[in-house]
Amino acid sequence: MIMTNSFHIEKMRQNAESIFHAGVRAVEPYSAVLRFCRREENILQIGNRSYDVTNFENIYVLGGGKAGAAMAGALEALIGDRITKGLVTVKYGHLAPTKKVVLLEAGHPIPDLQGQQSASATMDLARKAGENDLVICLISGGASALLSLPAEGLSLAEKQETIKVLLACGATIHEINTIRKHISMIKGGRLAQAAFPATVVTLLLSDVVGDDPAVIGSGPTIPDGSTFAECMEILSKYDLSGRLPGKVVQFLGSGASGNNPETPKSDSPVFENNFHLIVGSNMGAILAAREAAMALGYTPVILSSMIEGETRHVAAVHVAIAKEVRRSGHPAAPPACILSGGETTVTISGQGKGGRNQEFGLAAAIHLAGEQGMVVLSAGTDGTDGPTDAAGAIVDPHTIIRAAEAGMDPGLYLRNNDAYPFLERTGDLFKTGPTNTNVMDLRIMLIV
Amino acid sequence: MIMTNSFHIEKMRQNAESIFHAGVRAVEPYSAVLRFCRREENILQIGNRSYDVTNFENIYVLGGGKAGAAMAGALEALIGDRITKGLVTVKYGHLAPTKKVVLLEAGHPIPDLQGQQSASATMDLARKAGENDLVICLISGGASALLSLPAEGLSLAEKQETIKVLLACGATIHEINTIRKHISMIKGGRLAQAAFPATVVTLLLSDVVGDDPAVIGSGPTIPDGSTFAECMEILSKYDLSGRLPGKVVQFLGSGASGNNPETPKSDSPVFENNFHLIVGSNMGAILAAREAAMALGYTPVILSSMIEGETRHVAAVHVAIAKEVRRSGHPAAPPACILSGGETTVTISGQGKGGRNQEFGLAAAIHLAGEQGMVVLSAGTDGTDGPTDAAGAIVDPHTIIRAAEAGMDPGLYLRNNDAYPFLERTGDLFKTGPTNTNVMDLRIMLIV
Repeated sequence: MIMTNSFHIEKMRQNAESIFHAGVRAVEPYSAVLRFCRREENILQIGNRSYDVTNFENIYVLGGGKAGAAMAGALEALIGDRITKGLVTVKYGHLAPTKKVVLLEAGHPIPDLQGQQSASATMDLARKAGENDLVICLISGGASALLSLPAEGLSLAEKQETIKVLLACGATIHEINTIRKHISMIKGGRLAQAAFPATVVTLLLSDVVGDDPAVIGSGPTIPDGSTFAECMEILSKYDLSGRLPGKVVQFLGSGASGNNPETPKSDSPVFENNFHLIVGSNMGAILAAREAAMALGYTPVILSSMIEGETRHVAAVHVAIAKEVRRSGHPAAPPACILSGGETTVTISGQGKGGRNQEFGLAAAIHLAGEQGMVVLSAGTDGTDGPTDAAGAIVDPHTIIRAAEAGMDPGLYLRNNDAYPFLERTGDLFKTGPTNTNVMDLRIMLIV
Repeated sequence: MIMTNSFHIEKMRQNAESIFHAGVRAVEPYSAVLRFCRREENILQIGNRSYDVTNFENIYVLGGGKAGAAMAGALEALIGDRITKGLVTVKYGHLAPTKKVVLLEAGHPIPDLQGQQSASATMDLARKAGENDLVICLISGGASALLSLPAEGLSLAEKQETIKVLLACGATIHEINTIRKHISMIKGGRLAQAAFPATVVTLLLSDVVGDDPAVIGSGPTIPDGSTFAECMEILSKYDLSGRLPGKVVQFLGSGASGNNPETPKSDSPVFENNFHLIVGSNMGAILAAREAAMALGYTPVILSSMIEGETRHVAAVHVAIAKEVRRSGHPAAPPACILSGGETTVTISGQGKGGRNQEFGLAAAIHLAGEQGMVVLSAGTDGTDGPTDAAGAIVDPHTIIRAAEAGMDPGLYLRNNDAYPFLERTGDLFKTGPTNTNVMDLRIMLIV
């Protein structure tokens, strides 16, 4: 009996892993672009839009992000023969062979001078585009840092200091983005503004909860809904005038008085020939995972692609749902696969080693104690989780038994945010290596 | 348009309230007992068991809990003519007219001398029951405190001190219960042991996550899976020997050496004629709420009846699921009703007034900002929530707008655990008055 049961759990663990990989495959930047973009003869189909590539004098490819190389490669595979020039900024070392598109390297997550030069060159190329040109912009996670270009008169250091103060003062991410866009020369639609009157198409690989295109990479080609006036309200709300670099305060105030140009809004002519499409997202990965789960005989339930919150409590809610599956057949009867995505947070109180997905696994393992027939996998779709070599964790009710046999107190490891050594010892680390994409985290619970 | 929309939300709020009330109605102790127990002529049907009431010389009714009066009343309505005697202990003031069953009042949540005397009288009556008698035991939330009887040689004060130390040392609830049962004369199956060899039937109204009958009211008629030996392990694990009252340590040690009788186990003859049935539970309320939601045209999804965790993070996960309903039609297409239950916790860091359901509402309201067509209700099925006169909260995307109009910063109120005045001001407190039942909390999210 015990051997049969062990085998069963082993098989479920394999299933969970293959469901995860199916999810990630669907959002690999190269295949994600080709999934939404097709070419037949001269017609380039992007989502439900069609563009005759022979109608354009020039086709420019711009953009940035950690997935930039693969996205550029896919575009070259489609319309390499028609691309005039391309400049895509990627993280140091994230290169791949390209033919027409030049890949530039820059710093991430801390912006550097290289990124500033790349952003400047990107803006120059956008400005070159004219009425009869097509600009295809490729944006993925990291673009905001990689393409960092301070507004006229501000320095990179002043910009960074501003973000630091904003992060520390308790401002919301929406408020931080509002100011970030207004002290930038490229974010908040300003790249689209530079490319005007060219036709602009943006392909996005979303690494943000909710997939707001104005948030992904700070939306360089997307209308900005915020204003200089709102920046001043934020300064006043958190009493920041004395704490931010003087030039930044002066610049924002000057903008609010109408002396600096506002970011382009959705009713601006800039966006008349502007189209964007999300080619990869957390929900994209979840839907592919769902297909894989069904093929393996599990009834799938998608909870949400927008899960946020403190990891250990999110894990508690997830396991409570898994337990209910076995107990009452809700929200689905076993064998079931419960899927969710998003990005949780860990409030660090300990000195340990781990990541949010590993901590999810450790917390889930504690709640799985005494249960049967359940496997919980949580991992970053980019194949990394915190400052570790693991993508996340894959745990089952035996995890806690293995921990006890090894003399480990799971509560102690959790309190110390020390999931990595715990899971390493129980054999429940999940390692994939870099996947070259990032649509946040994926959680898979299998219940039989 | 705005008026139509407001009306829509108003109607949804009414729907949420009526779904809540439908859930609570199903677990009202009186109707809950009558839902599972029927009498035809001389046959008393309890669940799938049948008892010929004329087969028994005496029928005794015992038990305790906050719902004791109504459960006793329902039993009297069924077999009042056959009840020999009854003793049910309730919280001070929780009385109701009964004919045969005597209701005793005692202290809750802090056990008192009255409760000790009630428990003693209850044990005496159980011991009177013989082979040809039927003992019906009614257990609901609060029974553990109301029927508190220290083991021979221990005092109520020593018992309470023990629990206090256990709560403070970080012991799990399972560990606390293990010791609690072993220093009691009535808990952990000992009431059933006293009634042996009578036939014992226990009706339970569950106020615990997971509905473990051995945990509800500390299972006075349910086999105990724990041992004196385990008590000693717990003492050693938390180094409690020097911190617990000396007599308690001595008593547990003596028990582990076989000098005090162990609690009765599941293979004991005590449980041969012993049957128990949960007549009311969180899932019972959820299932009734589900029916009501369907009747109102919502597609229902039950997440889990076992949700635990820090309230504000649980709320974040819930709202993420609600948002996904509108966004992608997962886990159900709108109009949908997402249901969950259980009992969350609030780690208090502020000085404010509220309860876990009100804090859930406040946290949910923050996450609902900018959304449309969603209503979130969270309330205690007992009609109370923390030290307030509200049962919980009912919020919608306008809550945060009303707060802004009133000049309130929602984040500040949440940090100060001050949901009551916030919700009072926005008009989003949910008040029901006492419902005379308790199956923990019910959360209802409506999404159109």
